[in-house]
Amino acid sequence: MPVDLRDGNQALAEPMDTPRKRRMFDLLVAMGFKEIEVAYPSASRTDFDFVRHLADSGAVPDDVTVVVFTPARRELIERTFAAIEGLPRTVVHLYTPTAPTWREVVLGRSRTEVRDLVHDAATYMARLAAARPGADIRFQFSPEVFNLTEPDLVLEICNGLTDLWDASPNRPVTHNLPATVEVATPNVYADQIEYLHRHLTRRDAVVLSVHPHNDRGTGVACAELAVLAGAQRVEGCLFGNGERTGNVDLVTLALNLHTQGVDPMIDFSELGTVRRTVEDCMRLPVHPRHPYAGDLVHTAFSGTHQDAISKGLAHHARRAADLGVPESEAPWTVPYLPVDPADLGCTYEAVIRVNSQSGKGGIAHLLQLHHGLDLPPDMRPDFSRTVQRATDDSGQEATPKDLWELFRSAYLAPGEEGPLTLDSWSTSEPAPGGHRVRCDLGGSGTADGRGRHEGAGNGPLAAFADALAAAGHPVDILGSAGHALAPGPDSAAVAYVRCRIGGATYWGAGQDTSVLMASVRAVLSAVNRAKGEDR
Amino acid sequence: MPVDLRDGNQALAEPMDTPRKRRMFDLLVAMGFKEIEVAYPSASRTDFDFVRHLADSGAVPDDVTVVVFTPARRELIERTFAAIEGLPRTVVHLYTPTAPTWREVVLGRSRTEVRDLVHDAATYMARLAAARPGADIRFQFSPEVFNLTEPDLVLEICNGLTDLWDASPNRPVTHNLPATVEVATPNVYADQIEYLHRHLTRRDAVVLSVHPHNDRGTGVACAELAVLAGAQRVEGCLFGNGERTGNVDLVTLALNLHTQGVDPMIDFSELGTVRRTVEDCMRLPVHPRHPYAGDLVHTAFSGTHQDAISKGLAHHARRAADLGVPESEAPWTVPYLPVDPADLGCTYEAVIRVNSQSGKGGIAHLLQLHHGLDLPPDMRPDFSRTVQRATDDSGQEATPKDLWELFRSAYLAPGEEGPLTLDSWSTSEPAPGGHRVRCDLGGSGTADGRGRHEGAGNGPLAAFADALAAAGHPVDILGSAGHALAPGPDSAAVAYVRCRIGGATYWGAGQDTSVLMASVRAVLSAVNRAKGEDR
Repeated sequence: MPVDLRDGNQALAEPMDTPRKRRMFDLLVAMGFKEIEVAYPSASRTDFDFVRHLADSGAVPDDVTVVVFTPARRELIERTFAAIEGLPRTVVHLYTPTAPTWREVVLGRSRTEVRDLVHDAATYMARLAAARPGADIRFQFSPEVFNLTEPDLVLEICNGLTDLWDASPNRPVTHNLPATVEVATPNVYADQIEYLHRHLTRRDAVVLSVHPHNDRGTGVACAELAVLAGAQRVEGCLFGNGERTGNVDLVTLALNLHTQGVDPMIDFSELGTVRRTVEDCMRLPVHPRHPYAGDLVHTAFSGTHQDAISKGLAHHARRAADLGVPESEAPWTVPYLPVDPADLGCTYEAVIRVNSQSGKGGIAHLLQLHHGLDLPPDMRPDFSRTVQRATDDSGQEATPKDLWELFRSAYLAPGEEGPLTLDSWSTSEPAPGGHRVRCDLGGSGTADGRGRHEGAGNGPLAAFADALAAAGHPVDILGSAGHALAPGPDSAAVAYVRCRIGGATYWGAGQDTSVLMASVRAVLSAVNRAKGEDR
Repeated sequence: MPVDLRDGNQALAEPMDTPRKRRMFDLLVAMGFKEIEVAYPSASRTDFDFVRHLADSGAVPDDVTVVVFTPARRELIERTFAAIEGLPRTVVHLYTPTAPTWREVVLGRSRTEVRDLVHDAATYMARLAAARPGADIRFQFSPEVFNLTEPDLVLEICNGLTDLWDASPNRPVTHNLPATVEVATPNVYADQIEYLHRHLTRRDAVVLSVHPHNDRGTGVACAELAVLAGAQRVEGCLFGNGERTGNVDLVTLALNLHTQGVDPMIDFSELGTVRRTVEDCMRLPVHPRHPYAGDLVHTAFSGTHQDAISKGLAHHARRAADLGVPESEAPWTVPYLPVDPADLGCTYEAVIRVNSQSGKGGIAHLLQLHHGLDLPPDMRPDFSRTVQRATDDSGQEATPKDLWELFRSAYLAPGEEGPLTLDSWSTSEPAPGGHRVRCDLGGSGTADGRGRHEGAGNGPLAAFADALAAAGHPVDILGSAGHALAPGPDSAAVAYVRCRIGGATYWGAGQDTSVLMASVRAVLSAVNRAKGEDR
């Protein structure tokens, strides 16, 4: 049950006006909430006017019940009932301070006096409701700072109200037990709820509700343990807005259910839109590390995490293909990501970012995703050293574009720009399996072996290596791989080669519309990279 | 145990360089942490260099132990030991993926192979440590994603390491059990920890550590319940920085202890300074609703909360006076504030802010605090209606200055500026207890009764009322109160009067260096306010 429009609203430096409140209300309805607390009508004209707006504008769908909040004072109860005139389904929510400090310091009343105060207010509410026979008006009660109140007093007051309001399974009363201020570990709150759950009379006529705040940072845990202990309903706010540290966050609670396979019956398929609407209405940001919704939540910077996520995403895609289902329907077991970002309307692109703490897996994943490069596994550590030198030097994150630029300058450029360059080239196959190459090597003054050279071999690449040897650049091609950069017959190809040159291993890469030419450039790249290291 | 410099650091878009890391390290030392994880030295040059910086600069006090993090690979373990050369006390922290998805999808290894991998790495670590007989090197192990790993495998690996490393009570091993990704309610994590706590061999030679993350928003609860279940040590970050949703927040954990009367042995007396330093180093904000440290945490906007806090603060001051102790030493039971803001280096001023959701208590508190006005309790509802009209109209927060301006224009101005004004005035006491007043009333054209009037009474105020009646403005003074605005004999005084005029009750206020004149102006204020309402 969202209380964004009441408890959340009263915690804003600038409370919402009717247009902002209406926007929030429409969002909550669209998400699927069926009971919504909308105002504290006797507290301000703004709140009163908003309830009137709901009554007059027909904004409340048939399956949604509106809740309004009132203290236990006759004139304020009257004003509350004036506010809801004409609304077909409402819950009038009565609250009273019951905890010892509140009774003694704030109210100056004894236990008995507080009990009588609640009884009088509740009687008056029942009388006002009875005067509107056509309206569906139910009741809710909150003992203020329940978790600091003697449990026997709470029981006495709640049971008295269940009787007084003649609650039944068809017309239950909501007893809401707020941890208005969190003051103990969540297991203590759960014990308190369990005690009430076990001892409330007419239990089937009571909706047992909890209302955790977050002063100790354990509001979500309080709600979850309280539900395990017998609670049936949770009051909170989207993204945990509310007094001080906020009310419990309903988004986190609902998505915690989602990740465990329980449908929360709330629509989060466009979580980004929900977040932006709430940020606009509340004028408060959602933190980058906020569960599920923060900017950094579906992100990994560390190399080990990136590597695992990259393998996990590939495994997920394979499994979906094996099962013959869309990826969204395959079981989700990707490491380090507790929820499929796609379930929340997010995309994988944001998942992996690269900095000096990153490893080969994340780098390879981003290069593939953004630039179509599928680096051979053996080549990844080589390139990741290049990236790490760059990010160590800059101290900054490397974008996919930065990674492409690093790859280009490290591997593609040496095959195209020298020092040793391939100025012209021809190949022939005079006999089956017998290839010949003739090439003109050029380049800068530091490049040895310029001029025309010829070579032979069992393939054009072997023949090119032979020509290079003739030019004074012996090279063993240990392996090569390649692929088209995009689907379709016109796509450019990229080739990767691993070569042994002067006792060490060098990777090279080339790009061309011809697969053969890409491989030739890759070999030349390796040769030039070896030269570069010699100097 | 703070992991801000390792786990927190690897989750930043721009990891910290040595100066930023050093600033964080010095902060952690100053706050009182005795064991600090500082780097993943084999992951980047930046991290390696920082450990060397600590070794070379003498930045590590004698009572602080440095922890470094390494995966289970020989060359990376070697680099880790190279980093810590010369540091007198270190913990080398080995981690390995052990959870099924990690084993199968990321490592491609069986349970047995993973166990052997850990054993080999641990043996190598022991050998490298033995080669440095003078150095105090202890060991830590983390099974990665402990909470998703079969408990019997964790036990088997951990117990094997306790034996292999020959842990003893004097030289314990730390077994750290990370919820690297939160995937279940916190009671489940606590059950897992309890199982290990009960079954680990040589239990007195093991420091049982937990490392919760916050994917479900229950990291703090996981840590607290895990400690109840047998854990002795918690790894986390200040304000919950860390991968995705962050590591568990050590500030919240420690201050949760503080609020329950347990000294966390960490200095938070200048929490604002701690927060600013961390925000600078991490380049991430602390949310306004972050427990204990957020801007809105020691704040109340709603009227009921403000009223309760105002009464609670007054009660706290009285109790301190009764006990003869400073307020900081009196027991803290102020409603809605789970911690005394002064304990954190914050002040009360920030506690209460006023908007359309606010009530008389908060308004009165701010007027008293910032402008020395102690409104009579009966007058507060009258003024709060004025404030609420203004904040309802503006939709904005009212600052203490705004409140003063509203008070001035509502009550002080009518006594000074008319419509009816007091142009001159003299008073005499011809006989004891018999006072006479002569006054010249002026003012704008709409003011009746201008001219010279005289009156008599048993005091000067009664005589002034008599003169007003003679001028056609009958007024019953029902009560009056007043006080000096500041300590000392030269202070201005303010007076409040409640008058019955034409069948209704009106409040007026006046300010003057003379108490009598302030009261006279207050009566004139009430008269003019009544006139204003007539129109």
